[in-house]
Amino acid sequence: MARRAVLEFWYELASTYSYLSAMRIEELAGAAGVEVRWRPFLLGPIFAAQGWNSSPFNLFPVKGRYMWRDMEREGARFGLPVKRPDPFPQNSLVATRVALLGAEHPWGPTFTKAVYAQEFGEGRSIAEPAAVAGILKGLGLDGDAILKTASAEPNKTRLKAVTEEARSRGLFGAPTFLTDDGEMFWGNDRLELAIAWASGERPGR
Amino acid sequence: MARRAVLEFWYELASTYSYLSAMRIEELAGAAGVEVRWRPFLLGPIFAAQGWNSSPFNLFPVKGRYMWRDMEREGARFGLPVKRPDPFPQNSLVATRVALLGAEHPWGPTFTKAVYAQEFGEGRSIAEPAAVAGILKGLGLDGDAILKTASAEPNKTRLKAVTEEARSRGLFGAPTFLTDDGEMFWGNDRLELAIAWASGERPGR
Repeated sequence: MARRAVLEFWYELASTYSYLSAMRIEELAGAAGVEVRWRPFLLGPIFAAQGWNSSPFNLFPVKGRYMWRDMEREGARFGLPVKRPDPFPQNSLVATRVALLGAEHPWGPTFTKAVYAQEFGEGRSIAEPAAVAGILKGLGLDGDAILKTASAEPNKTRLKAVTEEARSRGLFGAPTFLTDDGEMFWGNDRLELAIAWASGERPGR
Repeated sequence: MARRAVLEFWYELASTYSYLSAMRIEELAGAAGVEVRWRPFLLGPIFAAQGWNSSPFNLFPVKGRYMWRDMEREGARFGLPVKRPDPFPQNSLVATRVALLGAEHPWGPTFTKAVYAQEFGEGRSIAEPAAVAGILKGLGLDGDAILKTASAEPNKTRLKAVTEEARSRGLFGAPTFLTDDGEMFWGNDRLELAIAWASGERPGR
């Protein structure tokens, strides 16, 4: 039997457009027979390396205003609620450590989607450890124990390695989709094309 | 009879993704019964105002590498050739002055598409007055006379006013589509949605 195509889904928990992809990718990939590998990472260090100390949507306010209107329209199109959390961007460090741990467990994708739903669906904070623990508990998980493991040295070190991997593979934004054969697709607008490519489609050839 | 919906198509002649839209917009808008208003403008002054002295695809090289690969794939998808001109971005000042003049004449869209075809389809220069005159002559137009009018003070002043209009209406990139009711859509990826909106569609409502 042929090996199943895998699509890496690199996402930042503070990223608005990653939210739209996280809520859609399982159904689209499932229909195409593509397996999703969830890859949480931090964009902050990558932005910092190009001289940005915040989200480009804050650094360039006209672009930021457009983005929120676009998110509203895109949310309506996909049937997803959109509410801006305050502050934006949220500090995603604690939640990302947990998502990284979760990527090894069946609850990983569910946790990620619950984080996004709280942050961008309801506009509530996901920054404090208590908020993250609350999300885990809402999923019937042992929030305190998971937070403890996620904040321990081995997982923190792993997150640094993942961030370095993102940089070395040329990621510059989120969401980003990477195929088995090394194609990169950036942005929620490319989700369908990334899945099509992963499943072997080559448009126009 | 109801007034026909109009979609303003703001484009920069040095912009890769504007090329993809320029080549597609007439067919898509025509099918939807939407009238296109061609609005050439210069992105340079807008980028300069946010501290950029070149294309963001040059300032952020990892993003630039991605963009060219993405253009290759998107070109294949739309059946459009893609070849990188050297240098990139091309100086689009002379061609934009002519396109602005052309926006008042039937030859405007044809000229714009001929510029893009030479620049991004064949990877040839569109920067020098001679290159622009050559494109005009290739369309059977009086290149020298048009260049002279385009470079005269009234048209230069008009281009400055257009750039100021772009800034005051919140444009930050190209292509950008503006609808009658004040919606902004940014990027070739939003062309279909912009046309749908202009023709009255409201997805998800």
